Amino acid sequence: MLLEKSDIEALEKNHRSNLINSIAGFKSVNLVGTISENGLSNLAIMSQIFHIGANPALMGLLIRPDSVNRHTLSNIIQNKQYTFNHIQENFIDKAHQTAARYDDTVSEFEATGLGTVYLKNFKAPFVKESNIKIGLQLEERIDLKINGTVMIIGSIQILEVPNDVVLEDGFIDLQKAGTITCNGLDAYLSTHKLKRFSYAKPDKALKEMSY
Amino acid sequence: MLLEKSDIEALEKNHRSNLINSIAGFKSVNLVGTISENGLSNLAIMSQIFHIGANPALMGLLIRPDSVNRHTLSNIIQNKQYTFNHIQENFIDKAHQTAARYDDTVSEFEATGLGTVYLKNFKAPFVKESNIKIGLQLEERIDLKINGTVMIIGSIQILEVPNDVVLEDGFIDLQKAGTITCNGLDAYLSTHKLKRFSYAKPDKALKEMSY
Repeated sequence: MLLEKSDIEALEKNHRSNLINSIAGFKSVNLVGTISENGLSNLAIMSQIFHIGANPALMGLLIRPDSVNRHTLSNIIQNKQYTFNHIQENFIDKAHQTAARYDDTVSEFEATGLGTVYLKNFKAPFVKESNIKIGLQLEERIDLKINGTVMIIGSIQILEVPNDVVLEDGFIDLQKAGTITCNGLDAYLSTHKLKRFSYAKPDKALKEMSY
Repeated sequence: MLLEKSDIEALEKNHRSNLINSIAGFKSVNLVGTISENGLSNLAIMSQIFHIGANPALMGLLIRPDSVNRHTLSNIIQNKQYTFNHIQENFIDKAHQTAARYDDTVSEFEATGLGTVYLKNFKAPFVKESNIKIGLQLEERIDLKINGTVMIIGSIQILEVPNDVVLEDGFIDLQKAGTITCNGLDAYLSTHKLKRFSYAKPDKALKEMSY
């Protein structure tokens, strides 16, 4: 099917949301861990997460301030530290359940039964079950006027990853780590390696790298 | 392994790049199609692509202006229109090859043998082989001072997707469409459905949705 802008605008709201969230492609879905000034932890599944740069090591996160994720945003702004935790198949259901609109006094860690762990002296909580944990420090907040979304840029302060999934060249084998991806708002998928290629150069055939 | 900020900063450049690009999770890798004022088409594989919002339908793209992708950026700024094209397994090698630093006079469409197609009166070229095609209009450019990256926000003007991968509720089955994902800078993976869940509510068990 071919849809133009006016066709997309005419779609029913949830239909459009499913379509446009899916067409964006596979996403980096993570559990975002934060803590409030009062010490209440919060955990929220989010998929608007992306690589910004490697040096310095930066990641981006988009949040709608009026959404169920408003507490994550206010905790990040108050506390400046927050965590991204990769999701594996064995806790997808608990991860998805963190999206429920719990009362302000409820921690999604307790509500879903996911475990809390703290690394070094980092202030925000990590998910115990998560194989890959990233601790970030708020560097910049950019308000996107075009749709009222807030972009949070954070620098990686600490990371934990199993030794046996990191190759000699630094590449992390996410499939081996069990990290899943998502399609749209609510579907979760595992992955299967196809190919890893050498650096592309004009007039030179690609080499396949085994891993 | 546990790495802190100083450990990450001390890593060799390519090692750090592989590590930080991988830890960001699975990415939406697309071929970005553009055309210059002089009519030279350009095609570049990029993975810093993300959903910004469904209403209006917006997507984001990050580009380093000093990189091999500088022509994509200048074409978007000149022409205002550009395309995202999902990648399938049967042309991963050609897609990866678009990352080579070709001469300014060479179109990556011709160099790699990927086909060009135009939809309606949209000015930028789409990839013929791609099952899912998205045409975008430049809405906003935000320069991220923190690392010199440019963020391009575009509104979806047109999209093409096979009928048989769109469910009744608008959800696009990306696995069925053959869309792949990527790990780090150079590894490509197919996906395998695990679960799709109902909307999460407190004190209500999740339902699994079949698709």
